[in-house]
Amino acid sequence: MHATMQIAIVLYPEVTALDAIGPYAVLSRMPGVDLRFVAPEPGIVRSDSGLLAIEVEHALAETSAPDVIVVPGGLIARRMMHGHPVVDWIRAVHPTTTWTTSVCTGSLLLGAAGVLEGLDATSHWRALELLSRFGARPTLDRVVVAGKVITGAGVSAGIDMALVLVERIAGQTVAETIQLAIEYDPQPPFDAGSPLKASAEVRALVDGIVSGVRPGGR
Amino acid sequence: MHATMQIAIVLYPEVTALDAIGPYAVLSRMPGVDLRFVAPEPGIVRSDSGLLAIEVEHALAETSAPDVIVVPGGLIARRMMHGHPVVDWIRAVHPTTTWTTSVCTGSLLLGAAGVLEGLDATSHWRALELLSRFGARPTLDRVVVAGKVITGAGVSAGIDMALVLVERIAGQTVAETIQLAIEYDPQPPFDAGSPLKASAEVRALVDGIVSGVRPGGR
Repeated sequence: MHATMQIAIVLYPEVTALDAIGPYAVLSRMPGVDLRFVAPEPGIVRSDSGLLAIEVEHALAETSAPDVIVVPGGLIARRMMHGHPVVDWIRAVHPTTTWTTSVCTGSLLLGAAGVLEGLDATSHWRALELLSRFGARPTLDRVVVAGKVITGAGVSAGIDMALVLVERIAGQTVAETIQLAIEYDPQPPFDAGSPLKASAEVRALVDGIVSGVRPGGR
Repeated sequence: MHATMQIAIVLYPEVTALDAIGPYAVLSRMPGVDLRFVAPEPGIVRSDSGLLAIEVEHALAETSAPDVIVVPGGLIARRMMHGHPVVDWIRAVHPTTTWTTSVCTGSLLLGAAGVLEGLDATSHWRALELLSRFGARPTLDRVVVAGKVITGAGVSAGIDMALVLVERIAGQTVAETIQLAIEYDPQPPFDAGSPLKASAEVRALVDGIVSGVRPGGR
């Protein structure tokens, strides 16, 4: 435990940027927190499209007892779940966290670390069924709270997940104040944001642009 | 004009990260675009809280004819609007853009560049009235389209703004496909995201955490 609550947001090569920055926008506004980005190695981490380069100061190894962890996803999580330093780190720190959280396919990394055994959990809708191989019960909710583990659905769900987390940590008034500060009164111009709402045409097209990754592209 | 559509997302010290990364998450998934971050100088740009360090490759000066510009905000925009290289750049490139856009107090920078004269425009709700000094008509809508100028409301509104922009550029089906890819089916746990919806208590508290900036903090 720390004098203030330490929140570690994990970054790794090809992470989906909004998975991490949505929660960051919410959690960095919570009073009394010590927030840091952590990565397998300090230095530049390039996100999904390769176009966004984030300089990370702290290695996973120097962050051994965070109170809260936020694990974002990325297409690459489907490979990382078979063995990766981020998975090892989650397994090591989870026993002493107050909250262990994920966004999108970050839940596959929680699952690989053994965190989701027997729990309800969510993920990006296209990866949802993969959770069952880790003993989790796949749940098509936007935010799933299961004990001290909170999982969020795909990409943009990290904002909703983080507001739920702030409410649990600091109460509803603080959460609502942050919501107002970031003017989070969403008004999507279309209603296609879940597989239950999108048309068959749109669901079929999503393969081409789900990740934003361009082959060989920076 | 470029072989592909060039989109320049502006960064500058103390920019609000989600203002930029929300649109990035949407626009980077649009087929056939050449997206880049640009800053007054190449190198590390630290965002609002100082905790997020983004390495920017391209200077404003080497990006002289972008097709689309996205100008995010930050508390510091209230100072920058009195004169700043970003404002000079907007003034220089706007005549040849296809779309000139902003998120949050980025609209103050558009205004300072003379872009909003006679137009409806929006901004972060706390900065909205400042738009009138630039000849704009302040509008408390989430996304305002005025000719080729699109302004978005505070911080998280950049996601909605960018989906509107994608629809205009590439059509509704592409916009819906990106919405589904980022699973943007928002479900805020509270309904406090606009000044019309938040309680008086929450509105009064927002001063302390509107920016995420910590005095002396990195």
